[in-house]
Amino acid sequence: MLTGIGDDAAVLAAPDGRVVATTDFVIEGRHFRRDWSSAADVGHKAAARSLADIAAMGAVPTGLLVALAAPADLPVSWLRELAQGLAAECARAGASVAGGDTSRAPSVFLAITGLGDLSGRRPVLRSGAHPGDVIAVAGQLGHAAAGLALLEANGAALLERSGQDLPEADGPARLIRAQLRPSPPYEAGPEAADLGATAMIDVSDGLLADLGHIAAASGVLIDVGTVPLRDSFISAHCGETAAAGYVLSGGEDHSLAAAFPAGVALPARWRIIGEVRSGSGVRVDGKPYLGAAGWDHFR
Amino acid sequence: MLTGIGDDAAVLAAPDGRVVATTDFVIEGRHFRRDWSSAADVGHKAAARSLADIAAMGAVPTGLLVALAAPADLPVSWLRELAQGLAAECARAGASVAGGDTSRAPSVFLAITGLGDLSGRRPVLRSGAHPGDVIAVAGQLGHAAAGLALLEANGAALLERSGQDLPEADGPARLIRAQLRPSPPYEAGPEAADLGATAMIDVSDGLLADLGHIAAASGVLIDVGTVPLRDSFISAHCGETAAAGYVLSGGEDHSLAAAFPAGVALPARWRIIGEVRSGSGVRVDGKPYLGAAGWDHFR
Repeated sequence: MLTGIGDDAAVLAAPDGRVVATTDFVIEGRHFRRDWSSAADVGHKAAARSLADIAAMGAVPTGLLVALAAPADLPVSWLRELAQGLAAECARAGASVAGGDTSRAPSVFLAITGLGDLSGRRPVLRSGAHPGDVIAVAGQLGHAAAGLALLEANGAALLERSGQDLPEADGPARLIRAQLRPSPPYEAGPEAADLGATAMIDVSDGLLADLGHIAAASGVLIDVGTVPLRDSFISAHCGETAAAGYVLSGGEDHSLAAAFPAGVALPARWRIIGEVRSGSGVRVDGKPYLGAAGWDHFR
Repeated sequence: MLTGIGDDAAVLAAPDGRVVATTDFVIEGRHFRRDWSSAADVGHKAAARSLADIAAMGAVPTGLLVALAAPADLPVSWLRELAQGLAAECARAGASVAGGDTSRAPSVFLAITGLGDLSGRRPVLRSGAHPGDVIAVAGQLGHAAAGLALLEANGAALLERSGQDLPEADGPARLIRAQLRPSPPYEAGPEAADLGATAMIDVSDGLLADLGHIAAASGVLIDVGTVPLRDSFISAHCGETAAAGYVLSGGEDHSLAAAFPAGVALPARWRIIGEVRSGSGVRVDGKPYLGAAGWDHFR
């Protein structure tokens, strides 16, 4: 950041000569609830939503602009924690908060703009997948959706523990934390671009829905297999059947799904889950999947 | 624009190697009323609000990201006209709509991100004014505030005429149009940078309030004279006293105010209205001005 908050606009470095930019709403009652999420959680999640979009283009996040409308009686401490959450998530991604705007509204409205730099890479679009490519995912799938289901069923007790430093075994609270504070694998975005990814997307609506966007933009069929997608952690706490649904259709983990030419040696964090064929749409184990409509946040 | 709407993020040219970026809310009931503004008016005004901030840094606007939250029953025709207004105002500034997000809300919420390119210029900040500089303004002052006062007093009849092609003499409707659809002098921003402007700001809160931001950031006193600020057009329709208030404290015209080294030959659109001295704050005709708090839109 060259010039930050306090002038008419921010000035950020864009050494590539191109800038990657995206804007997303994060709205109380739709993307978060103040009785479930702490202000810091909201900041982390709001920043993650835009920064993951930047990474999904193969770019390195550089800055965030934050427009916040809030009720007049929102405590200053809430706003301070929100700012800390935004800044901390930016730091995770290597970016910083560069500017913003504030206004009044009856509930909390955030509009977050993420900016990023391609550092000489070509942007990885949704439209470049070819038959013969493999489909791989970096990051968790279904944890955020499982956490939302647990919150809806039995929130308060688990919620209290989700903010703490939890042992691996404490599944429910960890899944809730994944809903409240997702951890996108930002570095995997530029990494995928460097590995020759032909298409990439941020998994925000649900794996099948987002692979559907790649399939439609690329004019291909994507076939995913359920074996590499099984998640024993979710299954242990939510049951096998529900877990499969969360993994295939749950959104908000902000993991990255990408197509790579067959034979590319992928680092361990990229799990191959399917392949690209001639045709259209998305299939699971070779068959159409009925629950593929994707995630609509709180409906 | 290199990659636009429909991927995870947009990719825009940033040939300078830096990008100028700003985000602003435009909220129904606060920045516009749907019974006063057409959807196209809202689009023009929302785009102008961010694009003028880009110009006020000395940059050329390149792109706009639009986040829109709206009631489910908003007619599609309203959204189409909004998009046309946004695109038309972008075209006036040489930019284009590059991306966005949509969501639901009980009333219309827009969060607009403007992006721009400095084309090798140093950014013109608020903090560079020096004693001895002159203060000049490009664009109208007080027209938008006068229009708002006329709307509040006697809206409907004038409103109907404000959308038409009006003769110069038809003051009230022209003032209302200035409120509904401001016309920032975008080209004057990079022009001022090229002329050596030492500080610049977009007049969105009111002339004295915004000059106060320059004075504070630069550590100087700014003294403006009322003679070059008189606006006979506003006076003819609102009276001398009210007109003076609108010119000094009315916001939303999105004109540009800048400090220039004394002796710089300024093009005709830049009117010299005052000078920079040692000290602090803003004075009018050498005296403190009580009505200087600035414009709070609809309060």
